[in-house]
Amino acid sequence: MVEEVKEQGKSKVRTVFFVSDATAITAETLANSVLAQFHGLQYVRWRMPFINTIEKAKEAAMKINEVGKETGNRPIVFSTLVAGSLASTFNEYCNAFVIELFRSFVGPLERELGVPSDHSVGKSHEIGDQERYNKRIEAINYTLSHDDGQTNEGLKEAEVILVGVSRSGKTPTSLYLAMQYGIKAANYPLLPEDFDRGELPPALDNCRDRIFGLSIAPERLSQIRSERRPNSRYASLENCRYEVHEAQKMMENEGIKWLSSTSKSIEEISATILQELKINVSAEMGM
Amino acid sequence: MVEEVKEQGKSKVRTVFFVSDATAITAETLANSVLAQFHGLQYVRWRMPFINTIEKAKEAAMKINEVGKETGNRPIVFSTLVAGSLASTFNEYCNAFVIELFRSFVGPLERELGVPSDHSVGKSHEIGDQERYNKRIEAINYTLSHDDGQTNEGLKEAEVILVGVSRSGKTPTSLYLAMQYGIKAANYPLLPEDFDRGELPPALDNCRDRIFGLSIAPERLSQIRSERRPNSRYASLENCRYEVHEAQKMMENEGIKWLSSTSKSIEEISATILQELKINVSAEMGM
Repeated sequence: MVEEVKEQGKSKVRTVFFVSDATAITAETLANSVLAQFHGLQYVRWRMPFINTIEKAKEAAMKINEVGKETGNRPIVFSTLVAGSLASTFNEYCNAFVIELFRSFVGPLERELGVPSDHSVGKSHEIGDQERYNKRIEAINYTLSHDDGQTNEGLKEAEVILVGVSRSGKTPTSLYLAMQYGIKAANYPLLPEDFDRGELPPALDNCRDRIFGLSIAPERLSQIRSERRPNSRYASLENCRYEVHEAQKMMENEGIKWLSSTSKSIEEISATILQELKINVSAEMGM
Repeated sequence: MVEEVKEQGKSKVRTVFFVSDATAITAETLANSVLAQFHGLQYVRWRMPFINTIEKAKEAAMKINEVGKETGNRPIVFSTLVAGSLASTFNEYCNAFVIELFRSFVGPLERELGVPSDHSVGKSHEIGDQERYNKRIEAINYTLSHDDGQTNEGLKEAEVILVGVSRSGKTPTSLYLAMQYGIKAANYPLLPEDFDRGELPPALDNCRDRIFGLSIAPERLSQIRSERRPNSRYASLENCRYEVHEAQKMMENEGIKWLSSTSKSIEEISATILQELKINVSAEMGM
């Protein structure tokens, strides 16, 4: 780690730690969001999850101090330590720039909500409500078994049905919807035979309100398909142009909302779908 | 929405909004983590993503104010609005308890890092580095094609190989590792024939350092399997006891690290695996 830092040159590189009494996923998510606002800097990131005893809090602080000495740069710490004793021990021993994600908000929220927080450890990504957690796992299994039009059974259970040409991003998006939001998301490929018929796959007739389309720039599609089947007609730019054109035409005709996944992340696509289909679900699926 | 609030009774229910110029995933993640600290309250959660113009910022504020009036409770807003103009417009119009997740930290960080933040919109869940993003999609595809021991091809590419009896949580965990961390995670079922042989599947001989085991309480396993195949020998408590016992014995004998997934969330399992296998990856896979 230290080597890495030195190679990359002191000044521009900062070492960032995600310290948590649980998974550190919240700390990491927020930290990466904040750090994305700063340019011209490189970050070496280290996760320190499950810092759930005073001993571990001391150890973590010591390790971080070491890195500070070795790199000559003050480490940056994003901490979600909740328990007062852990946080105060950590802060007492740690010579770093520490940003406390929870403690900044919990106080004001206690006053606003009129109830004390329990300062308990590792709540946020535990299995909270078992039922909701099971729903999430169910959604993942449902999505896997309804990937790529595998089956028409139980399609009425689907909360989202993604359609689009092969390799337009349906599978990762479906899985993200299931994983993050506990949404049962099926996906259906749009195939040349559908274009010949000029209609959506018949299985989707009664699900219009839950269908959302993904399209993609033919150039990008050809690139993606070529990695799988180089020099195939399937991957040829000409064929990709044809399929994308036909798919978009069909979605327009059928009045299906769609977006282009070309330059969008799974998260952006998913958030847009939830918004367009007016699905309001909390991400807190026992995560 | 408002109905829902009233039904549940004013006092105990607070309406929470996640306001973002992008996906609102960061706001939602941190908000849920913080709110998990408070008990005896119910929350109605609403996501307001892509608030990326002054107009939309005003609209959002107005909608939130309405809910405040209708519910008689001051709404709680977790905002990741970055652009100063958006945030200040929103704050000017919004009569809610607003927690600004970024603005609280960006200032101090600017001073610490010695560079200004660009206050630009929607950075954190965009496709940042295209290469890293592709790596993540690749990981998802790899994990899907290496689920449940489908193939031994390319196993040396796997960064994590999960083993465990059928329905012990291998698939959701593998997918989470790929989705969240861009890790190529294969998974391999431990089957009765492996127990008879008393050894791991031969395909795994050269991957010991990347193997991690999942176990589960026989009672829970029997419950899960029964949903799929009620009254089957496969789901019977007796058989589940046998398989779990044999699997744990084998993992012990083979010196494979394992944990029980019974009461752990996918996130807790994944974070533990990364820690145990000493894999340090940033979650910022272009997310």
